Amino acid sequence: MSAPICAQTIYPLDRADILAGAKFDFKVEFPELVQAADIKVTINGADQTAAFGKTADYIAREDGKDQSALLLRDVMLNKPGAYKIEVSDGVRSRAVTWNVYDTGPRKAKNVILFIGDGMSLAHRVSARLLSKGISEGKSRGTLAMDDMPHMAMVATAGSDSIITDSANSASAYATGHKTATNAMGVYADRTANVFDDPQVETITSLAKRKLDLAIGIVTNTEVEDATPAAMVAHTRRRAAYDEIVAQFFAARPDVLMGGGAANFLPQAAAASKRKDDIDYVARFRDAGYSVATTAPELSGLARKPETRKLLGLFTPGNMDGVLDRKFLGGGGVKKFPQQPDLTEQVHAALKVLSRNDNGFFLMVESGLIDKYAHLLDMDRAVYDVIMLDNAVKLARDWAAKRGDDTLILVVSDHSHPNSLVGTVNDDMNTVPNLPLRERLGVYEKAGFPNYPAPDAEGYPSRVDVSRRLAIMSASLPDHYETLRPKLDNPNDPTEKGDEPGTFKANEKYKNAPGSMLRLGNLPAMMGASVHSGEDVILTATGPGSDRVRGAMDNTEVFRVMVDALGLAAK
Amino acid sequence: MSAPICAQTIYPLDRADILAGAKFDFKVEFPELVQAADIKVTINGADQTAAFGKTADYIAREDGKDQSALLLRDVMLNKPGAYKIEVSDGVRSRAVTWNVYDTGPRKAKNVILFIGDGMSLAHRVSARLLSKGISEGKSRGTLAMDDMPHMAMVATAGSDSIITDSANSASAYATGHKTATNAMGVYADRTANVFDDPQVETITSLAKRKLDLAIGIVTNTEVEDATPAAMVAHTRRRAAYDEIVAQFFAARPDVLMGGGAANFLPQAAAASKRKDDIDYVARFRDAGYSVATTAPELSGLARKPETRKLLGLFTPGNMDGVLDRKFLGGGGVKKFPQQPDLTEQVHAALKVLSRNDNGFFLMVESGLIDKYAHLLDMDRAVYDVIMLDNAVKLARDWAAKRGDDTLILVVSDHSHPNSLVGTVNDDMNTVPNLPLRERLGVYEKAGFPNYPAPDAEGYPSRVDVSRRLAIMSASLPDHYETLRPKLDNPNDPTEKGDEPGTFKANEKYKNAPGSMLRLGNLPAMMGASVHSGEDVILTATGPGSDRVRGAMDNTEVFRVMVDALGLAAK
Repeated sequence: MSAPICAQTIYPLDRADILAGAKFDFKVEFPELVQAADIKVTINGADQTAAFGKTADYIAREDGKDQSALLLRDVMLNKPGAYKIEVSDGVRSRAVTWNVYDTGPRKAKNVILFIGDGMSLAHRVSARLLSKGISEGKSRGTLAMDDMPHMAMVATAGSDSIITDSANSASAYATGHKTATNAMGVYADRTANVFDDPQVETITSLAKRKLDLAIGIVTNTEVEDATPAAMVAHTRRRAAYDEIVAQFFAARPDVLMGGGAANFLPQAAAASKRKDDIDYVARFRDAGYSVATTAPELSGLARKPETRKLLGLFTPGNMDGVLDRKFLGGGGVKKFPQQPDLTEQVHAALKVLSRNDNGFFLMVESGLIDKYAHLLDMDRAVYDVIMLDNAVKLARDWAAKRGDDTLILVVSDHSHPNSLVGTVNDDMNTVPNLPLRERLGVYEKAGFPNYPAPDAEGYPSRVDVSRRLAIMSASLPDHYETLRPKLDNPNDPTEKGDEPGTFKANEKYKNAPGSMLRLGNLPAMMGASVHSGEDVILTATGPGSDRVRGAMDNTEVFRVMVDALGLAAK
Repeated sequence: MSAPICAQTIYPLDRADILAGAKFDFKVEFPELVQAADIKVTINGADQTAAFGKTADYIAREDGKDQSALLLRDVMLNKPGAYKIEVSDGVRSRAVTWNVYDTGPRKAKNVILFIGDGMSLAHRVSARLLSKGISEGKSRGTLAMDDMPHMAMVATAGSDSIITDSANSASAYATGHKTATNAMGVYADRTANVFDDPQVETITSLAKRKLDLAIGIVTNTEVEDATPAAMVAHTRRRAAYDEIVAQFFAARPDVLMGGGAANFLPQAAAASKRKDDIDYVARFRDAGYSVATTAPELSGLARKPETRKLLGLFTPGNMDGVLDRKFLGGGGVKKFPQQPDLTEQVHAALKVLSRNDNGFFLMVESGLIDKYAHLLDMDRAVYDVIMLDNAVKLARDWAAKRGDDTLILVVSDHSHPNSLVGTVNDDMNTVPNLPLRERLGVYEKAGFPNYPAPDAEGYPSRVDVSRRLAIMSASLPDHYETLRPKLDNPNDPTEKGDEPGTFKANEKYKNAPGSMLRLGNLPAMMGASVHSGEDVILTATGPGSDRVRGAMDNTEVFRVMVDALGLAAK
């Protein structure tokens, strides 16, 4: 199952599925010095120039090392079919095959891609329990994201590992190409420069270039974070926030909103994290964008018929989850009390984007699910799944009113190793000094949780009830387990360890009621629960959704969307 | 979300979905003494007799206690629609609503229900990795059970808890009714007798009674175990193996095979676990059954055209998993070397059952997945998922040859809290004395495992490779973690603890290489990992499979099957 030892690395990779007419960079990396005259590249037996219309540049010593390369940017293949690319340097040779595919005619006017970042089945089922209720074992309702006509399991591995991160997984959705951890919109090549990697075209570029669709990117994380950034950006370093903002500006999505103002502000600004003096808020404004920084501003601007370009930046870093915003007031809520809800963001985005008569592509991320899952803060994660579902419902209702001209997809980008193993029952095993774990009710002792009935938005008003869901992680750093919701601020299971780069259990929970030290199973350098490699669930409704079925690769999600838009046909 | 305090308990429960024409017992439990004359039961406003054709028996002091009851066995409702049942004792009253549903005409000649007991997404994805391979992040193939046109998420909660066991979950599939932990084919009532509970009809009874279908029940656990037993049995005590065998004999399934011979043999027999002198093997034989005890006997008998009733009992207890049978020789393999593979069992069952021109219903369970998951033996669990998939493939190929007249469903009955969090890499962090957890590769350090290429059946020949899948559980008893496959025998993480009814880490692994003590999160009375409450995946193909979509309750799996068979229409 290990990769064969290859003479050359060819990008795009073997078995890449490539949309006809989509742009990509072609690159060959030779492991040694090779003379240009010795190199032969054929595509289906003919010289590369026949297929690409031009010839790749020869790089004698890439990065100044004894390694040659070929590079050809911005090519495309318009004819569907199998392409066998053979590269020889006279001694070694390598062949890869690409599948270039066509699309049918356009079926959908709009595409909305909802991503629950790191949403696991455990969080989804828990969101259903809390927001719909259950009696005698039967759910009293269905999540809007569950009740869709088509469903698939989506495999999430990256080109370098069975475990993905949010950059390469979002990139698979945005480009239809697999790439490596931390990369987006590129194949991660061997050079030191993290911005020169061979690029693949994103769906936002395709949709704008070919159909002049409006583009919307909505999240509640920093907009520079992996999932939203992957919709437009090309870099193998997801942490390059300054450059990602520049790429956002170059791409000019019609709607861009979330947190992450810090990297839009010049370094002199108090909240800035930029390393230069560029004021990107000003640049966006100068380019015709309306700028919102609070929920009231957002809804006011969205209402104006002339607003067609909208930048919303509501917090310097990540926004806050709904449990803090509506109920607990933890996190950054006191400092930024006017953050919009994801439903308000989606409502505004739909208003603005639908002013483009050509249709739109919109990505909506409920992005804190993942961050809370990392922190083992299951309550906050589950509430943000409910919020995602509210946003999905809003979009479905919106689409239904228009006669269902919109493909709506709901998917996670990767899973987290969480499971609902029962309930924590404060009324069980109340003998003094028994460890808290003795109150974990499993099987019939789990019973049903006793959260208050959900409000109109599906949120129970309290999470600190006496019988609550026990969602546990299979990947743990050392930490103090309290089996209680964190009512002040999001959970913070670890602190810096004694050795550099390591973590240890956060002492702040040591003396919390019932607290028990759990030794984890992760290496000491991991300060939080990690991603897991299970498939994620994709549900879909609307024109083109019938392609969603069975076991799919994450790159096929891109294909579903471009097929619904008929992007190759244009 | 807690159940309301009810005046009376009414069985079937509120919101029960009931197949028109299926038999069930009607029961009302009053919490106190009630005079017969004070009781009023109406169904849609009319006296119960109008709907049921008879009147329920009054029990003044049920179980000799100050509690009255009404009981009416073997009723049915033939007309589809909503039924409101109102019960009053003159003081308190209670109402429940049932939905009686019709089916369309018969669409499928046969139905095959595959159950991967306790199969989680982590095990399924791992089975795909091992049996199909992956390169540069893309799977090199698809599981037969993944590649189906229809898919749903199935909710598994029981009537008493968000966490189910295999009895009530299999009962939901077999009867379309929710029930409680440990119960099958009945609602679990309050009486001490575990065999008098109000019954609901099973699909095997319906299929035989209405269509004269052949019935097959195939497992590799004991046939008396919850999943196979629930196909025919009615008891609220799944452990009542002797009585379950009697119920099997009364039901006379045409094909019954698995382990569990011990409870078929009279107590005098060496391997017997019966508490009486009945020889059920002899009884089955006398009733016209051919009896197989080894794989060669099984295939010989199945080949004979006159074999139409077949009992296969291959081990006294559970059979052995495929990793032991084909590769490691652990478990009971040395003692019972001629156990058939699940594929051989299915092959034989299809041969025998298809001799019935009326068609058949067949349940096939890969039942050890669950047992290995409890024991944290992930290798053995994953191999048995691959075996399940081989059996599914065999059935699909068989059905395809017949023009796809067969509805095939593949589902788990509940999940386990397992996740694939990365790989264990023996070549990583090899500094002496580092804890084994430092060799857990997560994210990009997970890379890809290096199992040998799978054989023709999809099994890598070795699991003790240097970079192997790290499947972890979120529910743990205290145990010694070695992060290594158990090459001798299935894992055995705990032993009896010092306090009665408790468990502690099994000392036998204490000095295994790299072993680390992991303190669990389960109460001390749990000696193994527990079930989890996530939805399970249902995939389906064949006539009637288009009803599989969205989020379904486990009782709806029954509805899919009876609809495909048109069982109400008969």
